[in-house]
Amino acid sequence: MGNSRIWTAALIVIGDEILSGRTEDRNIAQVARWLNRQGIRLLEVRVVPDQEQAIASAVNTLRSLHDYVITTGGIGPTHDDITVDSIAAAFDVPVVVHPEARRVLEDYYRDRPLGLTEARLRMARVPQGAELIPNPTSGAPGVKMGNVYILAGVPNIAAAMLEALDGKLEGGRPMVSVTVRAHTAESDVAALLKQVQDEHPGVSIGSYPFYRQGNFGADFVVRSDEEELANACANELRRRLADAHIEVADEA
Amino acid sequence: MGNSRIWTAALIVIGDEILSGRTEDRNIAQVARWLNRQGIRLLEVRVVPDQEQAIASAVNTLRSLHDYVITTGGIGPTHDDITVDSIAAAFDVPVVVHPEARRVLEDYYRDRPLGLTEARLRMARVPQGAELIPNPTSGAPGVKMGNVYILAGVPNIAAAMLEALDGKLEGGRPMVSVTVRAHTAESDVAALLKQVQDEHPGVSIGSYPFYRQGNFGADFVVRSDEEELANACANELRRRLADAHIEVADEA
Repeated sequence: MGNSRIWTAALIVIGDEILSGRTEDRNIAQVARWLNRQGIRLLEVRVVPDQEQAIASAVNTLRSLHDYVITTGGIGPTHDDITVDSIAAAFDVPVVVHPEARRVLEDYYRDRPLGLTEARLRMARVPQGAELIPNPTSGAPGVKMGNVYILAGVPNIAAAMLEALDGKLEGGRPMVSVTVRAHTAESDVAALLKQVQDEHPGVSIGSYPFYRQGNFGADFVVRSDEEELANACANELRRRLADAHIEVADEA
Repeated sequence: MGNSRIWTAALIVIGDEILSGRTEDRNIAQVARWLNRQGIRLLEVRVVPDQEQAIASAVNTLRSLHDYVITTGGIGPTHDDITVDSIAAAFDVPVVVHPEARRVLEDYYRDRPLGLTEARLRMARVPQGAELIPNPTSGAPGVKMGNVYILAGVPNIAAAMLEALDGKLEGGRPMVSVTVRAHTAESDVAALLKQVQDEHPGVSIGSYPFYRQGNFGADFVVRSDEEELANACANELRRRLADAHIEVADEA
């Protein structure tokens, strides 16, 4: 307890559409929450353009720093989908057609107009040595290459691939978060927050102010990978806020 | 024309709350769109935790690679707000109280309970040599240190700071995007897309499939920093799609 190994991950979001502001990313939050459920800490995210060199360089830096790297985006059938080629370049292996992926796509497109075209067959291409990640939603599978998990960019397809990976990655204990919401300016309680955090080693307290519909306040998020510690610290924080005559919301 | 200098930027989103999945980022998209209006290309985003070493290292890597670096998050009054300290460390300068920032905060808190407390005064701290970025929304200003622009994490405050910077950063021509929406599977037109792109140097075409309310299709986004080129390419793409009997939506 307390000294168990910490498993870490990085996420690479691939796509010009995110960097141009055309598309608002939905994958960072869902990958972050999924990783937490697996007991894996997301320590860095990079958003990179559809350029082989940028993708390969991010993959090679991050796969040596973390237990896992997840990528989203760029695995479709069109010319701008270059994730597989870029990751093959990163691993210095050729791109091959994966026979099982070809079979999955043959089945998927059998009864559709045009069938398995050359463009669609692109989605069966993987870096040599890779395994597949099932895609229960649409035909094209995800790809696992070493410790790199290559997922679709469309958020509901990425979600289905994450679900298929549920429980399959080794991890440690999930972080437990307890949120204490108070109707106060965070600057009014800054000293109190730091004090409570310092008194609880192994716990961190984040302070997130909000302004909504004329209402303002802050969420104090108490985090630890030991549930008892998180709860004890949150209770102490509630007590101190009450002592300071600061209203704590019942439910955050 | 065509050979004008390209200005580039990177964005660093600072905050454990994004990496834990607690908070869905809203700043990447708004910073991306704002930069595009300034004629500056956003080439990379990194999301990093509230850790001095991680922040300083991202800042030092990216400020040497790009004309501009923007950061969001971690400039509030609480113990977990360490962006200013981390960027001072990156530049190897001490943290000082900026006299103008102190005056702004004195004004802002004059008629509020407790006044300018020590915690609130934290928000007047800047790396030595920095300038201020006006914050028309709440009291605490943003900070400009060299080519690094340090903004708030709360999206509407970040937006107000961006507005204050409107037109103040040197840039080139904005990217022009023309979207052609078609009710087709992108794999059906992959070859056509690539062909049209190859025939239009200086233009890129991105293909973004969507699945919404039982509807599916794809947006083909034609991008160039020369408006005429983008329009000509989009028109040619519409013609080719029509020739292939593919329905193009009137408005994307």
